[in-house]
Amino acid sequence: MEQAEIGLIGLGVMGSNLALNIAEKGNRIAVFNRTPARTKEFVAEAGDLAGNIIGCETIEEFVAAIRPPRPIIIMIKAGDAVDQQMELLKPHLSANDIMIDAGNANFHDTIRRFDNLKDSGLTFIGMGVSGGEEGARHGPSIMVGGTEDSWKRVEKVLTSISAKFNDDPCVAWLGTDGAGHFVKTIHNGIEYADMQMIAEIYGILRDGLGMSAAEIGDVFGQWNKGRLNSYLIEISEKVLKATDPITGQPMVDVIVDAAGQKGTGKWSVIEAQNLGIAATGIEAAVAGRVLSSQKKEREAAEKIFGLPKPAEKPHDGMAFLADLESALLAAKIAAYAQGFAVMAAASKEFGWSLPMPTIAKIWREGCIIRSQFLDEITSAFTKEPDVANLIVTPAFSQMVKDTDAALRRVVSYAALSGLPVPALASALSYFDSYRRGRGTANLIQAQRDFFGAHGFERVDGKEYHHGPWGSGASIY
Amino acid sequence: MEQAEIGLIGLGVMGSNLALNIAEKGNRIAVFNRTPARTKEFVAEAGDLAGNIIGCETIEEFVAAIRPPRPIIIMIKAGDAVDQQMELLKPHLSANDIMIDAGNANFHDTIRRFDNLKDSGLTFIGMGVSGGEEGARHGPSIMVGGTEDSWKRVEKVLTSISAKFNDDPCVAWLGTDGAGHFVKTIHNGIEYADMQMIAEIYGILRDGLGMSAAEIGDVFGQWNKGRLNSYLIEISEKVLKATDPITGQPMVDVIVDAAGQKGTGKWSVIEAQNLGIAATGIEAAVAGRVLSSQKKEREAAEKIFGLPKPAEKPHDGMAFLADLESALLAAKIAAYAQGFAVMAAASKEFGWSLPMPTIAKIWREGCIIRSQFLDEITSAFTKEPDVANLIVTPAFSQMVKDTDAALRRVVSYAALSGLPVPALASALSYFDSYRRGRGTANLIQAQRDFFGAHGFERVDGKEYHHGPWGSGASIY
Repeated sequence: MEQAEIGLIGLGVMGSNLALNIAEKGNRIAVFNRTPARTKEFVAEAGDLAGNIIGCETIEEFVAAIRPPRPIIIMIKAGDAVDQQMELLKPHLSANDIMIDAGNANFHDTIRRFDNLKDSGLTFIGMGVSGGEEGARHGPSIMVGGTEDSWKRVEKVLTSISAKFNDDPCVAWLGTDGAGHFVKTIHNGIEYADMQMIAEIYGILRDGLGMSAAEIGDVFGQWNKGRLNSYLIEISEKVLKATDPITGQPMVDVIVDAAGQKGTGKWSVIEAQNLGIAATGIEAAVAGRVLSSQKKEREAAEKIFGLPKPAEKPHDGMAFLADLESALLAAKIAAYAQGFAVMAAASKEFGWSLPMPTIAKIWREGCIIRSQFLDEITSAFTKEPDVANLIVTPAFSQMVKDTDAALRRVVSYAALSGLPVPALASALSYFDSYRRGRGTANLIQAQRDFFGAHGFERVDGKEYHHGPWGSGASIY
Repeated sequence: MEQAEIGLIGLGVMGSNLALNIAEKGNRIAVFNRTPARTKEFVAEAGDLAGNIIGCETIEEFVAAIRPPRPIIIMIKAGDAVDQQMELLKPHLSANDIMIDAGNANFHDTIRRFDNLKDSGLTFIGMGVSGGEEGARHGPSIMVGGTEDSWKRVEKVLTSISAKFNDDPCVAWLGTDGAGHFVKTIHNGIEYADMQMIAEIYGILRDGLGMSAAEIGDVFGQWNKGRLNSYLIEISEKVLKATDPITGQPMVDVIVDAAGQKGTGKWSVIEAQNLGIAATGIEAAVAGRVLSSQKKEREAAEKIFGLPKPAEKPHDGMAFLADLESALLAAKIAAYAQGFAVMAAASKEFGWSLPMPTIAKIWREGCIIRSQFLDEITSAFTKEPDVANLIVTPAFSQMVKDTDAALRRVVSYAALSGLPVPALASALSYFDSYRRGRGTANLIQAQRDFFGAHGFERVDGKEYHHGPWGSGASIY
């Protein structure tokens, strides 16, 4: 029997869908699951695709079924289970075989796993897969980290199953060890920010303008035809227009306003902190979810403070809706600029040479943040791959100039109305800090020198490193 | 010769000042420095206090000079040097001797050091010392973590050297292992936020209202007599009124607007993230410093974008100044509330039982954030030590009600004027998120269920965990 191009362990929803996708694109795949019954069931349900699937009941059988060097996707719960699975698999493998972790791993674990295999003759790929279950089945965005040789072994299969933007496959090799999982983490961080910003605009439409869920759905539907065209805006319309089968009310009105957070948002913030990069949009989004989950505290606080009355709109009707659309675009620019800045810093720190235009390119389809907008980012970074910040590229600086006034009006309106816009406001502060050559940290430096003798630089470059603060100050 | 009550290793500026403070308060102290010449110099310069100081040239001599069980303060550069010093010291010590790290350690290191000594018969104190060099010399705020027995051994000496608020000493035992260094870290995180908020107000006065450094100094001087009375406002006046001896210009105008950041701001954010607490004021402050340090990028961006013209003030002259004063108070409340919320969560996570009223109490004097305000926090937490959030205590909820409208007007004005107020805006968003019983995360939950089948809870508690999203959505 012809050997399989690739193997896959773990036939949960994500693993099953990925395996079906691989088989459907004409690749032979060997599959293995801890419980053989699941493997049988999976093959039985694969229908026409079963001809490309080799269901294996033992690890020996599974490994023998794959053409060496063997790429083996491990699609199980992230964490210790992955290490255990790797240990079980290892004795059965031969030189240059490739274990591929396709779960949502923390990239520090990926680096550790990669390094641990270094002297074994085996190798490791950390592979970020975005697009949820639908994406896994029909075309995800795939971010690969590992050696170039191991990438070449899997390139054909992964290219065949990935999403396509026009004809460009949304898969790429991004660098060694943890590069793929790191980029997936930042993808998710940006997704947090994007979703939070949409939710803040939704809040203004609902609580500021008093619109119904369906009306707000219409607004997002309109926007999806314009500059905000994206999967997240598209599904915002859909969920806002859905009706609860139990009560007949708009579905969103029946859903509890408490969002959990998995690791990736938090990880993005922590890495940005460690790299010394401002990622305030992601920070605002994580904080937004944290506060959302403190629902009882919020209900108690509302009893104490009440809610402020919405302010007067800056202008009426359609003009204010246009402001909200522009404001959301402006805020998105800031959040994405921050995400790419984090990746640029990580690329240096971890020695990855992350290709910014390629990252934007493979996010244009398949993943949750897919959008027209990412095609524009692709163009901007293709022209200037080493630009300091997305904001100062010609295309995006023009977009910022076209939209920042609207963002100002929206943040001002929300501030006066008591409508929380942490992520939108963070974006505006980011622009206004970044565009100002002379900021206010001179006062902070003076204070620090006063109480801690930290010293400071002078604008004229002259040597005089402490201020004339006099007695009571901490001068040597 | 009478034995010393305590020993100290490391006669840098901080160590020397701490040793002089200890001697001055009538305690005998043995001192040791890696280079004996520095020890001799230190004793020679100690003047009247030399009688209480035993200068030691060898470790053997040093250890023998201290009354067992020996408390030994290590005041050297944080990091590996502390571990090395501990290893050098260890063989010379006896049962129940106490090594005390008084540097700016990361509390995770403190926990590790504490645990490593567990079976040795020795013990460890992690001691946060705030107040800079002046504080070390004349009365710092001291945050102690370790065993209760070790605390009892040092309580008298530390109480004698600590700052006093009225007659209350600003020192306390806060819990085991890393409790003291953790609380010091959050102290510093709050300090970051407080300084950033002051700098933002300074920016509005300078760039919005066009005031000179001296005029702004007068404003802070006035405010220091009111509700904002605090060390940081006091020194803001002083530095703003200082004149550069070289150019004759205001000193602050000659200082480069680029602030560095040490570890504690970043650590605060990372711990808040790991604990799942919103600490957006500290996050905004760290990001503010990060962006300040990207001065060349900012100058380049200003060339592209220019600066927006300040908006019209919400009202004139004194009324707007009163708004700024109230806004700063409101924003401070949010930042401090967040800091205390982080400590409350850490207390549970690390099993410390951190005493909130006591923490506020020992920050009233000696440390950088010392203020009248902290006396009010002390009262609020004394009445309700387990309150969910500072904001909902009677005293502070009234303060928020009195000031939040001003914060709204100031954030709105700054947004329209292109003046960055990331920390002030974060505070407003925090209030507005926290006071709203029904937020907007229901939309986020709907989106997540649409693309990832995450499921959601219903407001009516009925069992229906997925939305009716139809085809294209990821429903099992």
